[in-house]
Amino acid sequence: MNNANDPTYDAEGSALQRHLGYRLTEWREGFARVTLPMSDFIMNRQGLPHVGVHATLLDTAMGYAGCYTGDPAQRQMALTLSLTVNYLDQASGDLLIAEGRMTGGGRRTYFAEGQIIDNSGATIATATGVFRYRSNKFI
Amino acid sequence: MNNANDPTYDAEGSALQRHLGYRLTEWREGFARVTLPMSDFIMNRQGLPHVGVHATLLDTAMGYAGCYTGDPAQRQMALTLSLTVNYLDQASGDLLIAEGRMTGGGRRTYFAEGQIIDNSGATIATATGVFRYRSNKFI
Amino acid sequence: MNNANDPTYDAEGSALQRHLGYRLTEWREGFARVTLPMSDFIMNRQGLPHVGVHATLLDTAMGYAGCYTGDPAQRQMALTLSLTVNYLDQASGDLLIAEGRMTGGGRRTYFAEGQIIDNSGATIATATGVFRYRSNKFI
Amino acid sequence: MNNANDPTYDAEGSALQRHLGYRLTEWREGFARVTLPMSDFIMNRQGLPHVGVHATLLDTAMGYAGCYTGDPAQRQMALTLSLTVNYLDQASGDLLIAEGRMTGGGRRTYFAEGQIIDNSGATIATATGVFRYRSNKFI
Repeated sequence: MNNANDPTYDAEGSALQRHLGYRLTEWREGFARVTLPMSDFIMNRQGLPHVGVHATLLDTAMGYAGCYTGDPAQRQMALTLSLTVNYLDQASGDLLIAEGRMTGGGRRTYFAEGQIIDNSGATIATATGVFRYRSNKFI
Repeated sequence: MNNANDPTYDAEGSALQRHLGYRLTEWREGFARVTLPMSDFIMNRQGLPHVGVHATLLDTAMGYAGCYTGDPAQRQMALTLSLTVNYLDQASGDLLIAEGRMTGGGRRTYFAEGQIIDNSGATIATATGVFRYRSNKFI
Repeated sequence: MNNANDPTYDAEGSALQRHLGYRLTEWREGFARVTLPMSDFIMNRQGLPHVGVHATLLDTAMGYAGCYTGDPAQRQMALTLSLTVNYLDQASGDLLIAEGRMTGGGRRTYFAEGQIIDNSGATIATATGVFRYRSNKFI
Repeated sequence: MNNANDPTYDAEGSALQRHLGYRLTEWREGFARVTLPMSDFIMNRQGLPHVGVHATLLDTAMGYAGCYTGDPAQRQMALTLSLTVNYLDQASGDLLIAEGRMTGGGRRTYFAEGQIIDNSGATIATATGVFRYRSNKFI
């Protein structure tokens, strides 16, 4: 069994991931969790994490949630078709935790929902998304 | 007349803006344009600009579009309530151009739409958003 | 205690509700359930319940979810600012069951999520919405 | 050339269409217009057209917009994957006019945007949607 903490399994993530500093901390069938420490460079002009950062984490968590294969040699990729993010509250604490869950779908498209909580437990944002599987399963 | 190129008017943008490198290149009543050069660190695992980057640009352009006052001393801020982004095509070219336009609203909330084109002219993403004005108009 | 089955509490619902035939079958703080029997006149050209019918049920359930007061003499109303509906599966069975839940918000706006299941238990659609309270609480 | 007013071309519409009374009044490549007279039975508890009615019209207009073939014998159908509706203003006048336009897509999915105006010219609602083509083109 491989998981997100296995250094051979999606160890690097994306270039944007490295630039922003988030990490995939849990990954299993239909579920993924991504965390990002609060830092100066994710802030908007009001000193809050930019909505685009929340969208990035939610899209990433929901994207991984639908693409788990359990096998590092068989990578499944997906494209986002549509993403909706609602902003419920202002983040405090020092860590943003984004979780994504598959809610349905079939061979070609899937649906997911996500939420961001901070480490005070408050729900900061929720999201839903529609994704399309890429056909090149083995890359 | 002030505009986005006036160094006294929102010269700095947000911390995230500096970290990603986008610029506010046009700003007037009900409209804003934000541009971002393609660069390695905005990419997802498939070598395309991450959906979160598109969401960041669209949210930023739509946010500015509803907050123009024409007076650098009177800054209007807004919070995003809801953001929906649809991904139509893969970006090529070397520049992402996001435009936001107000479509309606009143004293407390406003609505906007946005789109991203690349410099080949293709429409990459579209968005709609609902925003709430912050009450502290003078900051 | 009043509830949705109390004939003095929102006994009539809306004109559209009577025209389509759905019923508010549970209502409490932060939650509402609306049910609609499958019938010929809710169908689209493909013989499935029209997406607009799903949207109607989800908006109604989420709208009630944020407006419970427990007191028939004190009616709280809300306006929908934004509604997103995702369609996961085709309905079968003979009853559509829509549930709405508040997920956050404050004095002026609130957020909710919803889902539709049919009486086979399949999840047909999910939704999120942003709503604004109307100021005339007593009407 | 066939169009929406040609009695041989989608003359009947859906069962829901007949129950609510809307009509397809223009249909061409990438565009459709649907109109609905204001009537008592489309109203919510506040005496305004129910958000679900706006969603129905917008989904219908955007659905037709992506399915024009020009040939009544070759009917193209689509399923809605995701629909987002924003409510900008209260309708007045006696007619709701919904327009849908394709904005992108390919063989399997397409994207559309829509808006509802009333016959006073006010923009009441806007929408975006993602749709999947059904494979059975000839039915």
